[in-house]
Amino acid sequence: MREKILDALKRKHDYVSGDLLSQRLGMSRQALWKHIQELKEAGYDIVAVPHLGYRLISSPDRLFPFEVSRDLNTGFVGKKIYYFDSLASTMNVAMKLGAEAAPEGTLVLSESQTKGKGRLGREWFSPKYKGIYLSLILKPKISPTEASIFTILAGVSISEAIKETTGLDTHIKWPNDLLVGHKKLGGILTELNAEMDEVNFVVIGAGLNVNNDKKSLPEGATSLREHKKEPINRVSLLQEILRKIESNYLLFQKKGPHPIVEKWREYNITLGKRIKVHFHKEHIEGEAVDIDIDGGLLVRRDSGVTDKVMSGDVVHCR
Amino acid sequence: MREKILDALKRKHDYVSGDLLSQRLGMSRQALWKHIQELKEAGYDIVAVPHLGYRLISSPDRLFPFEVSRDLNTGFVGKKIYYFDSLASTMNVAMKLGAEAAPEGTLVLSESQTKGKGRLGREWFSPKYKGIYLSLILKPKISPTEASIFTILAGVSISEAIKETTGLDTHIKWPNDLLVGHKKLGGILTELNAEMDEVNFVVIGAGLNVNNDKKSLPEGATSLREHKKEPINRVSLLQEILRKIESNYLLFQKKGPHPIVEKWREYNITLGKRIKVHFHKEHIEGEAVDIDIDGGLLVRRDSGVTDKVMSGDVVHCR
Repeated sequence: MREKILDALKRKHDYVSGDLLSQRLGMSRQALWKHIQELKEAGYDIVAVPHLGYRLISSPDRLFPFEVSRDLNTGFVGKKIYYFDSLASTMNVAMKLGAEAAPEGTLVLSESQTKGKGRLGREWFSPKYKGIYLSLILKPKISPTEASIFTILAGVSISEAIKETTGLDTHIKWPNDLLVGHKKLGGILTELNAEMDEVNFVVIGAGLNVNNDKKSLPEGATSLREHKKEPINRVSLLQEILRKIESNYLLFQKKGPHPIVEKWREYNITLGKRIKVHFHKEHIEGEAVDIDIDGGLLVRRDSGVTDKVMSGDVVHCR
Repeated sequence: MREKILDALKRKHDYVSGDLLSQRLGMSRQALWKHIQELKEAGYDIVAVPHLGYRLISSPDRLFPFEVSRDLNTGFVGKKIYYFDSLASTMNVAMKLGAEAAPEGTLVLSESQTKGKGRLGREWFSPKYKGIYLSLILKPKISPTEASIFTILAGVSISEAIKETTGLDTHIKWPNDLLVGHKKLGGILTELNAEMDEVNFVVIGAGLNVNNDKKSLPEGATSLREHKKEPINRVSLLQEILRKIESNYLLFQKKGPHPIVEKWREYNITLGKRIKVHFHKEHIEGEAVDIDIDGGLLVRRDSGVTDKVMSGDVVHCR
């Protein structure tokens, strides 16, 4: 009901008569007034003027499901949203929801994470209301070895969405770092629930620095705000990310991994570089010559031998 | 408290004085009587004779956690047991518990399954109180591609436990069928929750026909009872399975996959045979020459080329 009230206030950029509104929604003036108070407590700035009615002045900077769903226009991505003010990690909640048979496209959002998950057990810094921290359940018919394509797909989708929403160019460092000007803007994580033969579901996770002040960021990190010099509308950006993920996922289902990998090549800054890949206590060094359709990185060593690496930390030399 | 009462009754194969028992457990005679009634309702046959006390005549044929834990003597496997009279599938519950950070060794048992999971989306026939249907959470430090070893490990462990408990010889058909005399006795399923780089946890699932009557079994299936011509104590068998899984898992952690694969060779009936492996709509035919340490089956075609297959349905030719 609160969503219907908000919708009415948002559609009319002027005062909406309380009488008309309560009549249309089939509630008493008293009930309407109570809902308005609750919306104000949630951060909506709504003024009430006698004889004129209610008017929405501003919406809070929150990723409320109602805001995200409104005019989202996807077929299934983000149709079901679980929203939290704070969570240990959106990944764990999404993996649990997936095991409970949540439908494809189910989205977990949190305004902050106390133990945001990065790759290889690292933590993702997730301060409140500053970033976008999401986990999305997809159910592709693939084998577990093919799942890395979803890290690639998410990287491409987020880069496309950032370009479309803010005009900023992002780069992707293999396998999952989103960069702006050599500083880290975001990270992507793919987890899977699978049998040996086939994936039951994957969860794409992303952490993105959006409105962080420069001085609150860890070293080597950046935010969209730092580059745009103005606050970014997180709802619009998130909606565009969801749309891009859906369209790239449909592209993947129709044409396989190739067109996704092709797009990735455009955003990547790893290929052609001399790199070191560290994994556990080993590392290999050479030129990053190509990416395989399973997401693996092909590294040509000085000996001329080419190895495929599926994971690890890449350091770009020079 | 009911577990303590049962324990006292089990330890003394005679009447136990109600006065003594209630005193020792710090409860009134009335409270003791109530617990005894509940145990009787759960299927324990307990007689009460004035001046003599209570005596346990027989225990019900149920996999109650108390029964399974009693004298189990494992370090971590089965230390935490979730027990159900009926479930859709123990796998789904275990995958969910794993995502909620259940400890390693957590066991899910159900007396029946309405949608018991087989490999490749098939159903495992799981009639009530007749079989053992279990899912077990383990947290090995491996990459997703190494997880197949757990199907191998479970097959070996269950075969060892059946031999020890009943004296019967079982055979394993690659990858996961447990056979007695060419008929199917059980199946094993491994599912994983993983990042691209490392497994968060695996769930080993097993469905085993234990006390099924011959005529109630699907075609091509058999049960331990059919071969032993007598009912099998499911609790003892399950306990031995859990002990064997734990000891093989510790062996794997210490020495890697090789000794597990070596044991598997002894039980397997696939190697050396001419086989067809069907996977989706394709198949390859040739001789099963070996198993790889990642659980893959090496098949030498007539052309002399050897392929490794990671999944599929094997048909033994001739």
